[in-house]
Amino acid sequence: MKSFPVTDPIAHILWKGDRLLVLDQRLLPRRIRYVTCRTAKDVALATRSMVLRGAPLIGVAAAYGMALAARRGRAELKRAGRLLRRARPTAVNLMHGVDAMLDAAEGVREPLLARSLARAAAALHQEDISGNRRMAVLGASLLKKGSRIITHCNAGALATAGLGTAVGVIRYAHYLGKVSQVYACETRPYLQGSRLTLWELMQSRVPATLITDNMAAHVMKTCGIDAVVVGADRIAANADVCNKIGTYGLAILARHHGIPFYVVAPATTVDLATPDGASIPIEERSADEVLKIFGRPIAPRGARARHFAFDVTPHELITAIVTERGVVSPANERNLKKTIG
Amino acid sequence: MKSFPVTDPIAHILWKGDRLLVLDQRLLPRRIRYVTCRTAKDVALATRSMVLRGAPLIGVAAAYGMALAARRGRAELKRAGRLLRRARPTAVNLMHGVDAMLDAAEGVREPLLARSLARAAAALHQEDISGNRRMAVLGASLLKKGSRIITHCNAGALATAGLGTAVGVIRYAHYLGKVSQVYACETRPYLQGSRLTLWELMQSRVPATLITDNMAAHVMKTCGIDAVVVGADRIAANADVCNKIGTYGLAILARHHGIPFYVVAPATTVDLATPDGASIPIEERSADEVLKIFGRPIAPRGARARHFAFDVTPHELITAIVTERGVVSPANERNLKKTIG
Repeated sequence: MKSFPVTDPIAHILWKGDRLLVLDQRLLPRRIRYVTCRTAKDVALATRSMVLRGAPLIGVAAAYGMALAARRGRAELKRAGRLLRRARPTAVNLMHGVDAMLDAAEGVREPLLARSLARAAAALHQEDISGNRRMAVLGASLLKKGSRIITHCNAGALATAGLGTAVGVIRYAHYLGKVSQVYACETRPYLQGSRLTLWELMQSRVPATLITDNMAAHVMKTCGIDAVVVGADRIAANADVCNKIGTYGLAILARHHGIPFYVVAPATTVDLATPDGASIPIEERSADEVLKIFGRPIAPRGARARHFAFDVTPHELITAIVTERGVVSPANERNLKKTIG
Repeated sequence: MKSFPVTDPIAHILWKGDRLLVLDQRLLPRRIRYVTCRTAKDVALATRSMVLRGAPLIGVAAAYGMALAARRGRAELKRAGRLLRRARPTAVNLMHGVDAMLDAAEGVREPLLARSLARAAAALHQEDISGNRRMAVLGASLLKKGSRIITHCNAGALATAGLGTAVGVIRYAHYLGKVSQVYACETRPYLQGSRLTLWELMQSRVPATLITDNMAAHVMKTCGIDAVVVGADRIAANADVCNKIGTYGLAILARHHGIPFYVVAPATTVDLATPDGASIPIEERSADEVLKIFGRPIAPRGARARHFAFDVTPHELITAIVTERGVVSPANERNLKKTIG
């Protein structure tokens, strides 16, 4: 893996000691703008409003949010933890990021608190980078030469602190000469696929083609797809996977066409306290985000919409879950616990 | 069916004797604007550019296009037929509309040609209206009380000359008190679901909810869907159905969840000369229509995209095909031929 880049060329999360700069992913790829977060509240707001997104990145940002809170003393930490946990309900990495910082604060003397938590957050950041690298190697080994791959949403560098999860695997497999074409589903309503994944793949010179979400079945039937590779927002103890809305449908379509379905996610995404997919809270966001595109209505005035942000893929439909600690295959409770334990 | 409207309140195709006025469906629901067609070429252009769309409506408009050509004499008819046939490749109703007019022109004296073809086109128009009504009655009888229905694209009044096909069934079932909720898939890239179907359903006071295409699987699992009802652009002799991109995926998802999958289409949509779905030409439109929304790019400059406009659903996934001549169930070659004959 010598000349292969370990991190992304895009600096999308920058720790400046007294503030966190976060690339505004809502504006990509048209505009590069950073949002400055000086408090945990700023980080929570940026998370809720999707300035930053992607389960692993949300976790790292939350850790830095706690480090910012620590600058105001121990009393602020607990409040910040509550605030950050509430920012988004589904990605369990957020809860892990907060918990890891509360653990790091334990027994640290007040004057050292800020520096200590900044160091702990940076360590989490580094862990995510090295974890991504490990997943890229493990995941790429599952793909055959000349693979045509479908991916969904953005499980790339922009969703993590490193190479990305699903996109990290794809990029590394491409580096090994194993990828002939990637079909990126645009991923309505936020268009993370067209705006973010396609952008990342093009930067890495991976041959990439945009499709609308509803083309996936036709592409599986007619374009010789070899694998579907996606990320995850939370993985339950029984290996059910919660991920961006549309993932569950893709898994059913992949099964129908006999195509392997791979999930790539760090161990921090696994929540052994959640027994199964049915117990994962599915965030429902504003209907307005479905009813408008670029602020322009796509439906009649007064129209109703639902905006489920995630769905759950039962483990039976998943060929393998790739984590930095190993590949869980077949995806089930026993294998997941053996790997993550 | 006494107080139930037979045609739609929206005049979307108006024959004026020397010209055809066509509602520009690309601008709905924001603007009501008509395009005036004075020649067959105008009708072909309006069809190709999707000013009008929907297989049955395309067929009726093509017939009026031929009637316009007849005003310029018999020599013009053949040329107009070729032009119109090329406007869009998938909907076979277009070919039927042209063929019906060429048949009607047979043996008619030149001075009577224009009047004769105008009358024949109007008859086709009326047939579509009465066929829609018959399909609405037959289709609604398949639905149970309190049905929650998913539909795709727009198989409504705007896609036909009458009530609509799939939406006609839904509207009539709602009139009978059988519909509790309709989930309309937005149908990227043209958004016929959000712009057209939701608009029609709201006008008929049918409870309707917009979802993005990638939410269908989650909605099937969590919202208690009782049926999927869609239209068709061409039906092959073996009962394979070609329809708007996304239909094939919906059929797989419906099968996975044990939900009946109904196709509603007039007999003119059936093409016994096409043996199976694999023989149907699938229109691939400009990638630009995927890469931009409202003219604004959603992907990086230089991005590649595919734009498959239709897909094929194998008959094994279809519970029933509802035509004005009867219900084809199970959907297979023998039953289709028995009904359409």
